[in-house]
Amino acid sequence: MGVVLPFGDKDGGKASLQPLLDLVQPDMGRINETILAHAHSHVDMIPELAGHLINSGGKRLRPMLTLAASRMLGYEGDDHIKLATAVEFMHTATLLHDDVVDESDWRRGRKAARLIWGNQASVLVGDYLLGQAFKMMVETGILEALRILSNAASVIAEGEVLQLAAQHDVSTTEDAYMKVIDAKTAALFSAAAELGAVVTRRPREEQQALESYGRNLGVAFQLVDDALDYAGEQDKLGKAVGDDFREGKTTLPVVLSYRRGTQDERAFWKRVMEKGEQNEGDLERALKIMDKYNAISDTIERARHYGAIARDAMAIFPESREREALIEAVDFCIARVS
Amino acid sequence: MGVVLPFGDKDGGKASLQPLLDLVQPDMGRINETILAHAHSHVDMIPELAGHLINSGGKRLRPMLTLAASRMLGYEGDDHIKLATAVEFMHTATLLHDDVVDESDWRRGRKAARLIWGNQASVLVGDYLLGQAFKMMVETGILEALRILSNAASVIAEGEVLQLAAQHDVSTTEDAYMKVIDAKTAALFSAAAELGAVVTRRPREEQQALESYGRNLGVAFQLVDDALDYAGEQDKLGKAVGDDFREGKTTLPVVLSYRRGTQDERAFWKRVMEKGEQNEGDLERALKIMDKYNAISDTIERARHYGAIARDAMAIFPESREREALIEAVDFCIARVS
Repeated sequence: MGVVLPFGDKDGGKASLQPLLDLVQPDMGRINETILAHAHSHVDMIPELAGHLINSGGKRLRPMLTLAASRMLGYEGDDHIKLATAVEFMHTATLLHDDVVDESDWRRGRKAARLIWGNQASVLVGDYLLGQAFKMMVETGILEALRILSNAASVIAEGEVLQLAAQHDVSTTEDAYMKVIDAKTAALFSAAAELGAVVTRRPREEQQALESYGRNLGVAFQLVDDALDYAGEQDKLGKAVGDDFREGKTTLPVVLSYRRGTQDERAFWKRVMEKGEQNEGDLERALKIMDKYNAISDTIERARHYGAIARDAMAIFPESREREALIEAVDFCIARVS
Repeated sequence: MGVVLPFGDKDGGKASLQPLLDLVQPDMGRINETILAHAHSHVDMIPELAGHLINSGGKRLRPMLTLAASRMLGYEGDDHIKLATAVEFMHTATLLHDDVVDESDWRRGRKAARLIWGNQASVLVGDYLLGQAFKMMVETGILEALRILSNAASVIAEGEVLQLAAQHDVSTTEDAYMKVIDAKTAALFSAAAELGAVVTRRPREEQQALESYGRNLGVAFQLVDDALDYAGEQDKLGKAVGDDFREGKTTLPVVLSYRRGTQDERAFWKRVMEKGEQNEGDLERALKIMDKYNAISDTIERARHYGAIARDAMAIFPESREREALIEAVDFCIARVS
């Protein structure tokens, strides 16, 4: 049933994305070409704005999942390139709309597109990229891929609306919060991985295994992001520590701190997150309360739990370089914060 | 070759949408059910916001084109309902995003959704409806329909970006302006009509005829809208006379007035539309200049030109109630302003 890597080995910063990067490198070159070709338009603002985000050095983890999973299952055609690019375009469109919705000023260490080209262009270029994503899927003619990705598009938007309604509510339950990140983050990870089995026409069992791998990896990835927002180093992260705090966005470290806190501490969270009244020293106080209740380390523990499920999901596949690289990617995602 | 109705008969306010409404009435009931089912979500804000727009009394002209065209060609299945609903959802998503982009306060005589639920929710619920639209298309399994609608989604967004870049430029050419409305309005009309031939698997010639009908009807429809914004009666229109003027949005009446104007008049257009410096009496002056150069009546003449092409496009189909109703819809669209 293959090797399951003990977390201990890999959590000390040793787990790496390199094996995955090496495996997909030739295909990633083709993805880049496909991105350039499909972000093109005779309307100059579209390639300019899209290029700003596309060239901003994101890891392109989602399309890598599609490529590595297809390769693991022996796929030899070209459709995985189009599907992986469609996944990346859907992700880019979501980022453009997210920045408008969150009124964010920074994205991956660069000025958000909306600050340069305006909210209006960010909304519309996001729509354009989504349209291009669907065009690419249609070109493959694989209806099951279209079913998965159109469903993911709805679920992601639904998750974002849910977050909009709930994000300032610090008394939200952990379950409710998990539903948000399952929709807004994990849905696209799971779709990306699942497509590897769809494009190779593999049995339902393998499709479901990759869907589960992607979903749990996505949840772990988001929880680690939540932790990094309070525990990360700014230059590594490309965004300021405390962004979620300043935006009053309730994430798991806050959910745990609020539930475990005293009445005084709960009043603090309500003031800073729900009312948005933040003063000098409030972020430091937030970090102290989180430390007191192990809120960040427990968030990482939760991430490990989902990471373990992602790894086990891969156990049905025979051992291969691709499988090991996908498993190590889980450890890498978690090790970012360890 | 069928009857071609003389414009003279129908322009005096006699042309009606009623024959089309009567023909599609049973199917429109099913469309309404499908809309309700697919605008549903466990996230309350989604049906609330979507319902605000969906129930606001729009004519649903676009889905009617799909229904009537399918029926004209003898379609007997159910897929036309899903495709027509997908068209309406794409339109609704576009309206939601447009209102955010244009910072509009009113839509069809009601407060714009963004004023009630905020810009953020309008962006995200638009994304959700777009996702649901694609899900419905996928359910039909008709790849050609997916190709047409995903292409329309890209073209519409591209047209909106183009308009964003060009809308305050009063010296834009008529050709450039026509490109904008061909993309932002006519693309969905043409897709809606074309789907009637796609769902019935008719030969390419018939698909192209319906595509041409829809495209030219869409252009005529938009030009009449442009004219109505200066010449309409507020209660009929559901929006204030002069909205485009106040938003500094260059439409054909302005393009014509600017090109035909004196230096003084051109300076006026630049001040009010490009710089957005508008004072008491400026709208009245704009209307006077338009009147001097027949800018509104010539806009309607242009609309008639495209309307005539739409009518001729239908000539290849044998005479039928459906065909006559679709042709009369062209006259109705133009008669709105006569």
